Amino acid sequence: MARWQPDAPGRLAAAALDLFEEHGYENTTVIEIAERAGLTKSTFFRHFPDKREVLFGRGALTGLLAEGIASAPPAAGPLDAVAHALDALGRTFFTADRREFSRRRQAVLNANTELREREALKRIDLTDAMIEALNRRGVPGLSARATAKLGTLVWETAFDQWIDTDHSEDFGPLARQALTEVRAAAAVC
Amino acid sequence: MARWQPDAPGRLAAAALDLFEEHGYENTTVIEIAERAGLTKSTFFRHFPDKREVLFGRGALTGLLAEGIASAPPAAGPLDAVAHALDALGRTFFTADRREFSRRRQAVLNANTELREREALKRIDLTDAMIEALNRRGVPGLSARATAKLGTLVWETAFDQWIDTDHSEDFGPLARQALTEVRAAAAVC
Repeated sequence: MARWQPDAPGRLAAAALDLFEEHGYENTTVIEIAERAGLTKSTFFRHFPDKREVLFGRGALTGLLAEGIASAPPAAGPLDAVAHALDALGRTFFTADRREFSRRRQAVLNANTELREREALKRIDLTDAMIEALNRRGVPGLSARATAKLGTLVWETAFDQWIDTDHSEDFGPLARQALTEVRAAAAVC
Repeated sequence: MARWQPDAPGRLAAAALDLFEEHGYENTTVIEIAERAGLTKSTFFRHFPDKREVLFGRGALTGLLAEGIASAPPAAGPLDAVAHALDALGRTFFTADRREFSRRRQAVLNANTELREREALKRIDLTDAMIEALNRRGVPGLSARATAKLGTLVWETAFDQWIDTDHSEDFGPLARQALTEVRAAAAVC
């Protein structure tokens, strides 16, 4: 009998990550993921359209990023609005308890072309969400696109450091530091 | 009997584009593409690993871009070196006779998630090639990455205009104009 399952998507993602590490992405089936999570195949498909999606949440990050940009102080410049959003993500999404999961997840993504492709598309979606949120703040076309490109670089720089075991800082401070460095780098292009 | 076929990859790409437009990407097989091109399935697989690759050439663009950055004048700044490469691409790759093909190809890519994913990954490869070529010019880590992000935006802006029927300028001049605009936009981020 189907019943409500607390955090089924999170359990499915955790089970999938375990199995992808153990047997490889190609050799893992949706049924095995559902079983490992103590759920059914139909519960899996209620939350994800296919196996490829299980490590990509359901657009939560995109929504949080857009909200963070919208809620930046009115006087904040375009890239500062993105930094404000990344700071907020550090408190709500890239939290200390998700660090190890994020590190393992990234290693699995990097090892598989299908997953890398899906990730590449998700990053384009994120960039587009950034551009839209900036447009709504009154940042016009090409400025919003340039900001989103540099904002993505800030994000990637901070994220790579955050999941690197050599760093122990939280995501927010890493993003602030990356912002300063990216701004300086862009100024001498 | 297999024999040498002049520009087999180009003929296969042209045949694939026709068929994807006529029947959709999903409904087209490799055998149909090969037949339409007057070639065999084994010739197809000698040039492309799968159906998804047929519209993506074989890395020619990546090589030309890297060469263009390498051959920019020694005194050129990082973003100017990318602009030099885009100018060269306008003479050798994004030529007037490829404009209509590029326009049709982009419409097919935009309509299919699998193809969009492959394109997203190819763009990451291109960005990585830009970063490596800049590193070889002595542009350090984050500066090279920021330049590649903005260089990609210059590229995308020029390319979107080039395949837009409202514009008639060549790719090179469009890229030069986009460079000026992107630089101005980045300066006020």
